[in-house]
Amino acid sequence: MSKAIPKRSEDYSLWYNELVKRADLAENSGVRGCMVIKPYGFGIWEAMRDQLDRMFKQTGHVNAYFPLFIPKSYLSREASHVEGFAKECAVVTHYRLKNAEDGSGVIVDPEAKLEEELIVRPTSETVIWSTYKNWIQSYRDLPLLINQWANVVRWEMRTRLFLRTAEFLWQEGHTAHATAQEAIAETRQMLDIYARFAEEWMAMPVIRGVKTESERFAGAEDTYCIEALMQDGKALQAGTSHFLGQNFAKAFDVKFATKEGGLELVWGTSWGVSTRLMGALIMAHSDDQGLVLPPKLASTQVVIVPIYKGEEQLQLIGEKVAEIKSALLAKGISMRYDDRDTERPGFKFAEWELKGVPVRLAIGPKDMEKGTVEVARRDTGEKTVVALDENLPDYIEQLLADIQQSIYQKALKFRQENTHVVNSWDEFKQVLDDKGGFLLAHWDGTAETEEKIKEETKATIRCIPLAGQLDAVEEEGVCVYTGKPSRQRVVFARAY
Amino acid sequence: MSKAIPKRSEDYSLWYNELVKRADLAENSGVRGCMVIKPYGFGIWEAMRDQLDRMFKQTGHVNAYFPLFIPKSYLSREASHVEGFAKECAVVTHYRLKNAEDGSGVIVDPEAKLEEELIVRPTSETVIWSTYKNWIQSYRDLPLLINQWANVVRWEMRTRLFLRTAEFLWQEGHTAHATAQEAIAETRQMLDIYARFAEEWMAMPVIRGVKTESERFAGAEDTYCIEALMQDGKALQAGTSHFLGQNFAKAFDVKFATKEGGLELVWGTSWGVSTRLMGALIMAHSDDQGLVLPPKLASTQVVIVPIYKGEEQLQLIGEKVAEIKSALLAKGISMRYDDRDTERPGFKFAEWELKGVPVRLAIGPKDMEKGTVEVARRDTGEKTVVALDENLPDYIEQLLADIQQSIYQKALKFRQENTHVVNSWDEFKQVLDDKGGFLLAHWDGTAETEEKIKEETKATIRCIPLAGQLDAVEEEGVCVYTGKPSRQRVVFARAY
Repeated sequence: MSKAIPKRSEDYSLWYNELVKRADLAENSGVRGCMVIKPYGFGIWEAMRDQLDRMFKQTGHVNAYFPLFIPKSYLSREASHVEGFAKECAVVTHYRLKNAEDGSGVIVDPEAKLEEELIVRPTSETVIWSTYKNWIQSYRDLPLLINQWANVVRWEMRTRLFLRTAEFLWQEGHTAHATAQEAIAETRQMLDIYARFAEEWMAMPVIRGVKTESERFAGAEDTYCIEALMQDGKALQAGTSHFLGQNFAKAFDVKFATKEGGLELVWGTSWGVSTRLMGALIMAHSDDQGLVLPPKLASTQVVIVPIYKGEEQLQLIGEKVAEIKSALLAKGISMRYDDRDTERPGFKFAEWELKGVPVRLAIGPKDMEKGTVEVARRDTGEKTVVALDENLPDYIEQLLADIQQSIYQKALKFRQENTHVVNSWDEFKQVLDDKGGFLLAHWDGTAETEEKIKEETKATIRCIPLAGQLDAVEEEGVCVYTGKPSRQRVVFARAY
Repeated sequence: MSKAIPKRSEDYSLWYNELVKRADLAENSGVRGCMVIKPYGFGIWEAMRDQLDRMFKQTGHVNAYFPLFIPKSYLSREASHVEGFAKECAVVTHYRLKNAEDGSGVIVDPEAKLEEELIVRPTSETVIWSTYKNWIQSYRDLPLLINQWANVVRWEMRTRLFLRTAEFLWQEGHTAHATAQEAIAETRQMLDIYARFAEEWMAMPVIRGVKTESERFAGAEDTYCIEALMQDGKALQAGTSHFLGQNFAKAFDVKFATKEGGLELVWGTSWGVSTRLMGALIMAHSDDQGLVLPPKLASTQVVIVPIYKGEEQLQLIGEKVAEIKSALLAKGISMRYDDRDTERPGFKFAEWELKGVPVRLAIGPKDMEKGTVEVARRDTGEKTVVALDENLPDYIEQLLADIQQSIYQKALKFRQENTHVVNSWDEFKQVLDDKGGFLLAHWDGTAETEEKIKEETKATIRCIPLAGQLDAVEEEGVCVYTGKPSRQRVVFARAY
């Protein structure tokens, strides 16, 4: 711990970057726009991935793997899709290097030029629907409920660790159905799974909504999303689920024989979350001391730091810790005993605070005498002295559950305090600049107004909330910008 | 099941290809050399991956993620490494497409040319060691024990599903150590883990050995490997573990401050297994009826097929199956009840045989009367009538363990019968052509002789077996080809 990270209030953006690096989550690589996810960060991603994977499998989905490369002609089949992705893609044009004749090193071999260029997948609808054409003949082949965990590449010009990188890791679900109704139900089901994961596992409240036409996925009929609020008052889109209609079935000619003997185009969905969730997780809860991790996703839930002078004390503490360890493991609680003799307790405390370990136990000679242990919770910093007896594991189990709940409630309270109903254009601009957060405002429903508001304020419509998502949205009113009639408030914010 | 797959004895290669496709494991995609891994095949890969991942973690390794792209200049840093990989790599040269002016579609935007070309990783030593340079300063930073699960691309001209594809999935471990001794011990430890996985999980016996210089990984000091024998008498390299010496540390200037205050180059290892293991698994055990899966890697271990007339019988059987199911689940045995009313039992039997499910239960009305069930094991085809009572789950658990052992023993016996000690050049050629398999022969230790033998017979030295690996290898003799002295026999074979 060379020095403290910057304060959020001083420079939120710098705080985020330093936190990501100093807590050993990720760093920029020597490859433009691509990050290295470090072991500590990757462990958190693994926990997220494993839980999402369980939720997908519980709802009947299976995993598969499709090619990294997409022939240029595939991408071009769906007009709005290629329009959306062609401008930011990595293109493979050659398949060999050779030694330069002047001995200066290796160069691209001009004779090894591909007949058709390959795009590194920015998303896999095209390559997957070109495959589904062979897998789907009859209604008996439907639904097809497939997910893929993969890396994808979008050539972003301005990148930020986890939030926007040229290469990122994600999952992409691609399903095929016999009816529009069933495909829409699937789209909504996956949105609900994402929301449940965000709230119950990441402890991050989200609004479920639908995107406006201009924010829709390239090739979708409807894009549903979950939107979260970060501590600097900016919104973050945390997951999307698309109803694709029959667009990709049309583009790749995917038809099925119906029960009644007809031949119809297949209906599709796609849905994804990415390593961007890591950025959301970090920004939703962390503070000026470092990361705050929800216990359900922390790879180390409890750290024990011994406070001792001399080998003898250390050994006695070590014996006690061995007991605690097996009792915690029996409850499925992960713990780490930090008995490094190269660092002092204060250094260790700061390091585990920086890394967001939810619960810290400290045991010294006095504790050993009295049969107690000091328990510190990371989220509030609160310390309690607890008896070192057979009730300790239950106490810690309960404490972890409390922390999980408590950081969710804190984030929810923050969102409530930073969600503002605004009724005029002046109010809109003033609240946006002074307070930020989610603005609930009436909008006339046109892309033109949406675009003008974005140009003037950099605020975008994050979503049109689904029924029951927020108070005070389902009411008639007039657009804050044009004064034209509106049937419900939508959520505006500046966003990541 | 439209028709039977070809017989192994008629066309082994066609048998393999058809089996992979018909058992729903994988298929060729529209992208040259890239495969689609289908859900059933991917489920087996997931089981393999999860077990390997556990074994890596049990030995102190952690996962991380490094960039997909490698700048051309990185690849060039280690001379033999670039020599080994430059000829078969996918090269990204541009980062944007644009609409063609003649309206013919999208084309590569010539203005979006990269200053430095990026190689799609064929392996990640260079990008990882360029990162390790920043992570390693002192002996306290060592060892670094990191693994990555990733996709890699090698531009193969002749591809076969799982065995040789342009893109494949793998894991690559990359470790850094303070001493050569420790790095060599790591290299050997990972070889042992691969061997244990192959034998205990895949039920596939392997020989542990070291590669000759000409078969070594590009950039390694020593390459260790496990070699398996397929049913057509050809060898398959199933995993490699490399001692890298200080080669990559030199190339990327990775030094550490020693305990004694010096500054030394770091020692490295790398090791990997890939989706090629799927090919090995398929070819090691399967027969003319289809896949034979080891129970430990089968995603469905038991299938139950009801034999019935009418709804009433089906319902009675269904109730019984529900009981069996919960009893099996309680033992961690995965099962599937195939009560599809669209197919006959015979069709179902053939389908699950094709898909390699280890145990099949069939229950008909007579079984219900007598309280019995017919149990068929996939590996031998043997059928037994067993009492449908509370002992059934134990019986099945034991049967699965027997099958796991039995297919290992069968493969081991096959290997023993197809491992031949040969002592002259004529014998070498005759045995290779007539019988195939592993040939244990003396070799004079030169790359020249190795190359000549390869040219004349297409047989390569699979490995120099480690001590204790095979009988009859540790003895002095003379090279079968040149008559020069040799200190031990090596393993020759034609190989995948």
